[in-house]
Amino acid sequence: MPRFERIEYKPIPVRDLLVEMKNLSELMIDLAYSAALFNDKELAEDVLVLERHIDDLAYLLEMEIMIAARGDPKDAEDLIGVSTVAAATDKISDAAADIAAIVTRDIGVHPIVGSIFEKVEERLMKATVKEDSVISGKQVGSLDLAARMGIDIIAIRRNKDWIINPKASEQLLPEDILITRGAPLGTKEFKDLAEGRLKQMEE
Amino acid sequence: MPRFERIEYKPIPVRDLLVEMKNLSELMIDLAYSAALFNDKELAEDVLVLERHIDDLAYLLEMEIMIAARGDPKDAEDLIGVSTVAAATDKISDAAADIAAIVTRDIGVHPIVGSIFEKVEERLMKATVKEDSVISGKQVGSLDLAARMGIDIIAIRRNKDWIINPKASEQLLPEDILITRGAPLGTKEFKDLAEGRLKQMEE
Repeated sequence: MPRFERIEYKPIPVRDLLVEMKNLSELMIDLAYSAALFNDKELAEDVLVLERHIDDLAYLLEMEIMIAARGDPKDAEDLIGVSTVAAATDKISDAAADIAAIVTRDIGVHPIVGSIFEKVEERLMKATVKEDSVISGKQVGSLDLAARMGIDIIAIRRNKDWIINPKASEQLLPEDILITRGAPLGTKEFKDLAEGRLKQMEE
Repeated sequence: MPRFERIEYKPIPVRDLLVEMKNLSELMIDLAYSAALFNDKELAEDVLVLERHIDDLAYLLEMEIMIAARGDPKDAEDLIGVSTVAAATDKISDAAADIAAIVTRDIGVHPIVGSIFEKVEERLMKATVKEDSVISGKQVGSLDLAARMGIDIIAIRRNKDWIINPKASEQLLPEDILITRGAPLGTKEFKDLAEGRLKQMEE
């Protein structure tokens, strides 16, 4: 299960809700493809959990928008764009859940579906952190992966948990399974670093 | 209008249809956000055209899948994953079209929607090719942008046309408007190259 709590009703700024929905929905597409690519049922199940989480966010957001419109047609008109983007992110998360369900339902990845992952595979990578890796013990943020290699760590599997979209302060531990996305070259370099074949980052 | 022809019915391999749907649907999300970010109505309209194109592909794909199943339940079961991924890409393209419609309908980008683009802006960039730029006259493929900078050119506006997902053989011309996506550092470097402030690629 990913690390997030079930959201009870409380006022949350519309902006924060929308940012979370947008970022999460795009992440979910990559997580769903990762789950199919690596045939990882736990990750696929987490995508389904995230989809329900987005539904909760969508529900809260619609309420907040209604309140923000303050009964005023002009305010309502201004907010329709927000509502539209929110609905679009919800649709994207549904699509991700549909893909994840292929894995959880054991439908099996048909060779044709496998072939569409050829391009995905350049962008998404799974690696296990070895004890002697230079990244072991480091905080995610200290690695500066986006700037140095054009990649992001989108999920960490530790014991039985997936940590989705880890924070900069998250420390990488030996045996962590990482899923990254990004530039093919950076992806290759980072896999070598994580698995201890490369002992220092290229400058 | 983007460069593609309206598809008349003809047999196309399921694999080719699915790959095109998947790649195009993800591209559309970035194009739709680009259209909103740069308030570009023509690009937004092209996203709507692409959405109808995906609908055509979905229609052809469903027919091809029915034919491929050959009336056999086992074959049908094998193909259900393909059909599911196709439907998911269709949903994603619908979501992209919804976002694009905010621009074409002049709904206006509410500040809250603008704020969610802060992160998008790191990944998506628009630049005009200057006459004295080192990339002017070069073919897209020869620049090796994915490997060198972790970025891709996702669209080129030339005169009144958008060239969506340009081929490696496409030549960049002065006054071309490029939209790229990718790593923030590479994005910055490429903008400087395109606009003539940087005279050679960093090694």
